[in-house]
Amino acid sequence: MTDSLDPDDWGVFRAEAHRLLDASLDRLEDARNRPWQPVPQDVRDGYHLQSDEPGQPIVQIVTTLQDQMMPYATGNTHPRFFGWVHGTGMADGILSEMVAATMNANCGGRDHGMVYVEREVIDWTRRQMGFPQGASGVLVTGTSQATVIALQAARVRAMANVRATGQTDARLTAYAGAGVHNAARKALELLGIGNDNLRLVPTTEDGLDLAALGSQIIADRAEGAIPFAIFGTAGSVDFGDYDDLNALADIAGDQGLWLHIDAAFGAWTRLADAPYRQLTDGIGRADSMACDFHKWMAVPYDCGIVLIRNETEHRAAFAARPAYLTGMDSGLAGGDPWFCDYGVDLSRGNRALKVWTAIKAHGTAKLGRTITANCERAAQMGALVTATPPMAMAAPVVSNLCVFTADARLEPDAQSKLNMQISQDLQNEGVAVFSTTLAVIGGKSVTCLRAAITNHRTTSKDVEIALAAVARAAGHA
Amino acid sequence: MTDSLDPDDWGVFRAEAHRLLDASLDRLEDARNRPWQPVPQDVRDGYHLQSDEPGQPIVQIVTTLQDQMMPYATGNTHPRFFGWVHGTGMADGILSEMVAATMNANCGGRDHGMVYVEREVIDWTRRQMGFPQGASGVLVTGTSQATVIALQAARVRAMANVRATGQTDARLTAYAGAGVHNAARKALELLGIGNDNLRLVPTTEDGLDLAALGSQIIADRAEGAIPFAIFGTAGSVDFGDYDDLNALADIAGDQGLWLHIDAAFGAWTRLADAPYRQLTDGIGRADSMACDFHKWMAVPYDCGIVLIRNETEHRAAFAARPAYLTGMDSGLAGGDPWFCDYGVDLSRGNRALKVWTAIKAHGTAKLGRTITANCERAAQMGALVTATPPMAMAAPVVSNLCVFTADARLEPDAQSKLNMQISQDLQNEGVAVFSTTLAVIGGKSVTCLRAAITNHRTTSKDVEIALAAVARAAGHA
Repeated sequence: MTDSLDPDDWGVFRAEAHRLLDASLDRLEDARNRPWQPVPQDVRDGYHLQSDEPGQPIVQIVTTLQDQMMPYATGNTHPRFFGWVHGTGMADGILSEMVAATMNANCGGRDHGMVYVEREVIDWTRRQMGFPQGASGVLVTGTSQATVIALQAARVRAMANVRATGQTDARLTAYAGAGVHNAARKALELLGIGNDNLRLVPTTEDGLDLAALGSQIIADRAEGAIPFAIFGTAGSVDFGDYDDLNALADIAGDQGLWLHIDAAFGAWTRLADAPYRQLTDGIGRADSMACDFHKWMAVPYDCGIVLIRNETEHRAAFAARPAYLTGMDSGLAGGDPWFCDYGVDLSRGNRALKVWTAIKAHGTAKLGRTITANCERAAQMGALVTATPPMAMAAPVVSNLCVFTADARLEPDAQSKLNMQISQDLQNEGVAVFSTTLAVIGGKSVTCLRAAITNHRTTSKDVEIALAAVARAAGHA
Repeated sequence: MTDSLDPDDWGVFRAEAHRLLDASLDRLEDARNRPWQPVPQDVRDGYHLQSDEPGQPIVQIVTTLQDQMMPYATGNTHPRFFGWVHGTGMADGILSEMVAATMNANCGGRDHGMVYVEREVIDWTRRQMGFPQGASGVLVTGTSQATVIALQAARVRAMANVRATGQTDARLTAYAGAGVHNAARKALELLGIGNDNLRLVPTTEDGLDLAALGSQIIADRAEGAIPFAIFGTAGSVDFGDYDDLNALADIAGDQGLWLHIDAAFGAWTRLADAPYRQLTDGIGRADSMACDFHKWMAVPYDCGIVLIRNETEHRAAFAARPAYLTGMDSGLAGGDPWFCDYGVDLSRGNRALKVWTAIKAHGTAKLGRTITANCERAAQMGALVTATPPMAMAAPVVSNLCVFTADARLEPDAQSKLNMQISQDLQNEGVAVFSTTLAVIGGKSVTCLRAAITNHRTTSKDVEIALAAVARAAGHA
């Protein structure tokens, strides 16, 4: 018995690790037969941690991980998981996470390989998005976090001393289309700007209404507010809509406002074929953008990125290093710039390696083909809905989202109830996972079924099976 | 060729995955012989990602991960890595991260196993820290993020409408000892409260000067400020000092202020033997606390936690769910409460499983023994320094930190230069990693060598080797 937490017997540990790896690969290879399932009460009870937990042999740990943990995942690895916007993950994620856990690098800074890998991932993303050379970025948990970072940079541009003085009584206002993701609101709350100061601008078929945006900015200025940022949306969470990013860049330039693009999943149409690629035209003109790798790029959770056009503005919002973090010209304390100066976190996990591995293993073109294929399958689903009354679409399919009602003949409340019931039933049966959202159909608000297809395992056949299940659950078949 | 990102040949993939697992375990088993090393330029060049990266066979990916990535880590797995405050990681982290990548669960919410595992991890931590039943928490990237969350909850208590209105012109002030971690300052900046409003209170041998704190609060109130929060420190980053947490809880109670404890590493003395355990007495009386699992609990990066005494106050700061996230009574959309309502992130990786696995594998008592042993080795290092003039301590060893100068006979500037040079030389030689920090010796500011021992592989012999290397590098031997 030593004080070390290393295995007492590396041979035993190694054998058990290989057993667990086989179980992991078995599970992933069989993903098609492993939908979400509820967690039985006795399994949940088995998760309990006693205050004086005694410790267990590794063989028991591995058995528990295999039998009591692995089966009870979110289910987003299943080919008919279309709920919310969940990435599917992929097998090489197991490899990169295994290596990351072995290395256990702190990517907050210093001079080591994973810092250089992260710079490569950021720069590859910068080029795909069309941001200029010299733009900066940092990997984060996801778009919510990236939005906070981008918005703080935008605020520091508008109020140079805000890091010292705080928000004071200057009323900063931000602008977004009505379908903007809730992350925008949460970021404004966290920063002390206030969600009252998020101006929701009406949207048209072409995204945010540009005339209404202009009028609102003028009206706010007249009232003494300081307009400082526009949120553009590239892939709205409800319907997969895209704002006209070039038009927003023009307005932001004219008005001297910071343009931030929420592109959590939608950014990756940049890798897709026409007509999907065109949806993100102009994204490279923004001052900042946020997107995820764990959604449409299928790297394991969690991993997102913020890109900021002007590195000086990025650093002005976050750089700060006390004495014990002083850099040096050689050794571990070299490696400037350090990523801790580009966001909130000082200790940082290794998110770069899993992205790097995914890009290197699959290549840019194949990653793009999965994006195109997902959009094509959403279009297929939309066509099937339209061809199968009384199912009806809530909105046209623009990219990878399909929102519909199972029976348009019913009263709105009855439709909502039916759609919610179908969503739950198909989840519980393990057939398919649709989530729900509110949509306006015929002037009435209806809770609809919603499929966000960001799943590289989804085939045309899966779309047919899922829609047939909806029809059956709705009593049409 | 399909659109799926699954392996073309699972058999080949499986063989390569096992090869990589062996390489990972080889590396960790041989951690004692694998110190940090600089990344050669040709290796760095090999990290480059082309815009049209073509994709590679998995055998090539595995070889690259093994030969070009794994050797170039931060080096904190090495037993003589004492720099900054880095956790060492452990072998079972490979297992839990492998499983997490396989499951690819989004822990933002919904009804699945990893949500229940996270609740168990939070509750186990709550009990260790002595927070009351019903206190809430959430796993985050680390203490920096946890501090932001805690501080937002504190602000919402002080300004109930701040999420809507923003900070306005109310000047909130917060209080901390002079050695407070920079995360406090960064959080105040991010929230728009402003770092001018962080009042640094002088410290004595017993931590934050309580009389000075009281006077400052009174003076600020007299000037129209709204004192709202006190930061207590449990384990200062420079010297490992602890504030008197019970006294701070008394003052916070008397003054009606929120007490937050920064306990990034220091929290875990709760698991240690006397006299180290006593350092965190009173921590359970705070309104919130932040600490890391990736430091002294040795789980892989990144993973921290925030605990908040009053769940209602925690939710009041963050809860917000739009239509597409509406919960349901069964199926995947069940599982309330959702963790996305307890912090910034909506998509969340699986941090709980690696903590759960560590606790279950090693047990509470053994984890505590590694904490005690690290403190004992810091004391050993301090005694060796004191016994070996002209080396000299900058401050007494309180917990696991040892800060000293290699040659107290020199002028302050010459000492600083020597200590920085020794730090770099020993890193570059792969002998030991000390970082540096500023300390006052004999009334003069000196850059000192600094060892934070949070490393379960460190033996007494390692301490002797490291100190002998310092003596040699300083020219004493």
